[in-house]
Amino acid sequence: MTAGLIDGKAVAARVRAALKDDVSAFIARTGVQPGLATVLVGGDPASEVYVANKRKSTVASGMADLHQHLPEDASQAEVESLLRRLAADPQVSGILLQLPVPAQLNAAPLIDLIPFEKDVDGLTTLSVGRLAQQKPGLRPCTPAGVIELLDAYDVPIEGANVVVIGRSELVGRPVAQLLVNRNATVTIAHSRTRNLAEVCRAADIVVAAVGVKGLITAEHIKPGATVIDVGIHRGPEGLSGDVDFGPAAEVAGLITPVPGGVGPMTIAMLLVNTLRAAELQYELAGAAATA
Amino acid sequence: MTAGLIDGKAVAARVRAALKDDVSAFIARTGVQPGLATVLVGGDPASEVYVANKRKSTVASGMADLHQHLPEDASQAEVESLLRRLAADPQVSGILLQLPVPAQLNAAPLIDLIPFEKDVDGLTTLSVGRLAQQKPGLRPCTPAGVIELLDAYDVPIEGANVVVIGRSELVGRPVAQLLVNRNATVTIAHSRTRNLAEVCRAADIVVAAVGVKGLITAEHIKPGATVIDVGIHRGPEGLSGDVDFGPAAEVAGLITPVPGGVGPMTIAMLLVNTLRAAELQYELAGAAATA
Repeated sequence: MTAGLIDGKAVAARVRAALKDDVSAFIARTGVQPGLATVLVGGDPASEVYVANKRKSTVASGMADLHQHLPEDASQAEVESLLRRLAADPQVSGILLQLPVPAQLNAAPLIDLIPFEKDVDGLTTLSVGRLAQQKPGLRPCTPAGVIELLDAYDVPIEGANVVVIGRSELVGRPVAQLLVNRNATVTIAHSRTRNLAEVCRAADIVVAAVGVKGLITAEHIKPGATVIDVGIHRGPEGLSGDVDFGPAAEVAGLITPVPGGVGPMTIAMLLVNTLRAAELQYELAGAAATA
Repeated sequence: MTAGLIDGKAVAARVRAALKDDVSAFIARTGVQPGLATVLVGGDPASEVYVANKRKSTVASGMADLHQHLPEDASQAEVESLLRRLAADPQVSGILLQLPVPAQLNAAPLIDLIPFEKDVDGLTTLSVGRLAQQKPGLRPCTPAGVIELLDAYDVPIEGANVVVIGRSELVGRPVAQLLVNRNATVTIAHSRTRNLAEVCRAADIVVAAVGVKGLITAEHIKPGATVIDVGIHRGPEGLSGDVDFGPAAEVAGLITPVPGGVGPMTIAMLLVNTLRAAELQYELAGAAATA
């Protein structure tokens, strides 16, 4: 292996340490403690683990854990009513509806009940529009984490040729928007792209978020390029990504491992978003008071 | 010149003729006549010409002209109040706030008072989000017109390499989204792109929407590629586009002229959007009635 490793665990730890200071400063300045309301419907075991992690990290950052749990058979109206209450509650800075929700629920209209200034996942339709229009708002955590990693390793984004493989709402599209906003030349490639290897070999930065294990290999990478692997797949040999790590690391200049690359950034950026949400609401309340 | 000409005037005329039939069929089926409320604040001479054109075309399509005019010195509250009234009025299918508005007004919050199902310009934050999320909604007229031209000339979009030059809210970003949704591999290039000619020469389709007169020339175009010119510039020799037409037409396979290419499509797609808005509202009302 010749590539340098992008250590997501170390970057996430630094982001979290800096955030803790920023939270203290925010509380000292405003008297408001930011709080995150994770909303879990039912008892999906994986979701329980994820939510427990988010709650623990929230508390460790000095923010309030305002977790809400609804039973497995909660109706659409019950979840709606909870989300409306949280939307109106000034103690609640951020709201996160843990997905997936049980089958009797329709997730999309529930997500859109979260006001953009509390949308710490950056997934509501309004948040997606605000990103494309470059209006202030909260950006999806994993895409924001990708940018944070590039910045942490001083990878130039402005003017860079970036290929994003994958066009999902969660990762591909928003990371492309964030990169365009940072003046990169961005190509959105996907399963229907012809000559994917050739397209990728033109890139200074490759972001793999296509959800196909090991799809991206040495022939996709220009020597010295930066490779960010957003994929995560469980196999007999443990976790791996969309990038075939061994061969890719022989060609790339910098590369994220899986696990330990993009993964740890997601919760770190959720915490950053929760503080940012509290700031946004503080600014909006100030603007309303002086209007 | 070796390229075939893409005749936007002819395509727009066909779109408008088909629309007229679709409007008649919609009225026969629902008893509802679609109506477009153009909103003009003040008397900017260019805006007056544009609005007059839109109103005339609306009537010619069999739809109702519900034009609204406010004085040059209208306050933010007066425009807001008019937009809220139009938003609530079931006779109004589409609302179009003619831009620019006079200097005392703040356009962005006014635009966002238009409900997505009446947003015939496709410019509200919610409409922009719905496009990125591929939810039903109204798409911006010029980008939709670009797609219509490609389809009219049977230019394959799926799997094609497309370079969009320009990342404006009005054209570059939405046309990129529409092309990704149609399974193209899309590169968003712009003023900070390095080696623009090389990037463009990889494209089967070039969409120039950068706002720089004659920037795109023969060296940017792969032989046989399709070139769509969204630019429009007034000069001593009349109108011209972002593409240096003469040299580009020696290399391209198909090319839009300026004028007579993308330009005529914009009003045609506005009319299509007005009918689509009426259909959307009819569907939403039906869904609400059966819910």
